[in-house]
Amino acid sequence: MELTRRELLGSLGGLAIGAAIGGVGTRQVFGATKEEAPALPWPYKKLDPKAAAAAAYEGYGKAGCCYGAFLGVIDGLAKKVGAPYTTIPTELWIVGEGGMAGTGNLCGALNGAAYAIFLTAGGMEKEKREEAFAIIQDLFHWYEQTKLPIYTPKKAILYDGKIVKSISGSTLCHVSVTNWCKVSGFKSFSAARSERCGRLTADVVAHTVELLNKDFAGAFKRGFALSAAAQGCRDCHDKGSELENTRGIMECGQCHFNLGTKHPEVK
Amino acid sequence: MELTRRELLGSLGGLAIGAAIGGVGTRQVFGATKEEAPALPWPYKKLDPKAAAAAAYEGYGKAGCCYGAFLGVIDGLAKKVGAPYTTIPTELWIVGEGGMAGTGNLCGALNGAAYAIFLTAGGMEKEKREEAFAIIQDLFHWYEQTKLPIYTPKKAILYDGKIVKSISGSTLCHVSVTNWCKVSGFKSFSAARSERCGRLTADVVAHTVELLNKDFAGAFKRGFALSAAAQGCRDCHDKGSELENTRGIMECGQCHFNLGTKHPEVK
Repeated sequence: MELTRRELLGSLGGLAIGAAIGGVGTRQVFGATKEEAPALPWPYKKLDPKAAAAAAYEGYGKAGCCYGAFLGVIDGLAKKVGAPYTTIPTELWIVGEGGMAGTGNLCGALNGAAYAIFLTAGGMEKEKREEAFAIIQDLFHWYEQTKLPIYTPKKAILYDGKIVKSISGSTLCHVSVTNWCKVSGFKSFSAARSERCGRLTADVVAHTVELLNKDFAGAFKRGFALSAAAQGCRDCHDKGSELENTRGIMECGQCHFNLGTKHPEVK
Repeated sequence: MELTRRELLGSLGGLAIGAAIGGVGTRQVFGATKEEAPALPWPYKKLDPKAAAAAAYEGYGKAGCCYGAFLGVIDGLAKKVGAPYTTIPTELWIVGEGGMAGTGNLCGALNGAAYAIFLTAGGMEKEKREEAFAIIQDLFHWYEQTKLPIYTPKKAILYDGKIVKSISGSTLCHVSVTNWCKVSGFKSFSAARSERCGRLTADVVAHTVELLNKDFAGAFKRGFALSAAAQGCRDCHDKGSELENTRGIMECGQCHFNLGTKHPEVK
């Protein structure tokens, strides 16, 4: 008899199943079958933003921004919920370090947080996907517009001096780093910059957990919007517009600050 | 007795463990304990790039670029290797759609492929991390510099007309899309553009599998480098340089095409 995934998950009821593993003693094993993992979203329980931020900061020290951000949320759920969170290979999120494998693209803290949001709030169904996407976009706009880092560790991992705040204006790793370097005067590979990114990872996770807690309580509302300037760009260039020659919900001005002489005047 | 993860994994020997699940019949269950998932890298077996590309294209039609790319690699491994690949919630990679939750940032096909590469070739150890990062960076440069899409499906999912090729010059979703719109004349939310991205997802997966097969055979070598122009930018702005005020291994000229009057002449 072949059961559908939903039937199977229903029959398992989300319980971890005890099984004897030779030589290791009795341990709880994950209830996923050979065929499929549990469908998204995975069960969420309210987390403490401060504890999650501290875990993220510690995770950053161990294996970078994306790992720290994903772990900051998922480790809390592994402790509160257990399986299936215990079965996800958190090491995988090391990949997002330095804007994806060091390439300076999408900020790793945002990358890790986005995956954690989708795991707990998203899914294959349009409604769940859009719910998770709205939370992620809100987080991204908050990141673009907020002076960071805010987090202060009990004991600094990499640099113990003052870490000044900056506005990234962008969700890109290298832009975020450069704008902080401009404000702080530190170099991009200094210990102070690494410390700044560790604290920023903690901030991203604290804010992510606040958003997920609100969503879990049915009270999530978008708190941040794309700037009016970027919205103005989208009016002519994005979906449904006259030109419709790009897509995106990012700040434009950080890259497109010089529109050339052929572009109509922007009011 | 508490065993370390490596000891535990050694004792399990990568075997899936049979267990009776009430009401579902005997099924193979994942051997991960409640404490931890198997350490990276997960075992790889040589895949067929053409089959992987077809699976990626089909996955794109179901749930977008990032999902298609991740599934294109992982589904093949789930069939060839079984657990632990069968336990990973592939739906999670829907999140990378349209440059991460539709924001137009990192190309979703590259995002999904990067995670698949790190899962099979990466790990917590520096050596494994650097190996996976090198493969990912090589994939990213290939994507920046290659006329895509190449893939032609047996039956088109979204648009049956001619799909022209373009060079993205960037790993960003919205830049890649805009450059294709410029060359093709199609709008960014047209069915033709979606079809182009589906085929490009198939291309990214075919190339990813070629790189992973080479790496598995101990024969991976970088085939693509950052352009000389971008390397020139890094000489003054990146790690160890005089200014050291950014980081990144991305093409610069797509955004920084106007350096202003204060920038020294670029030779």
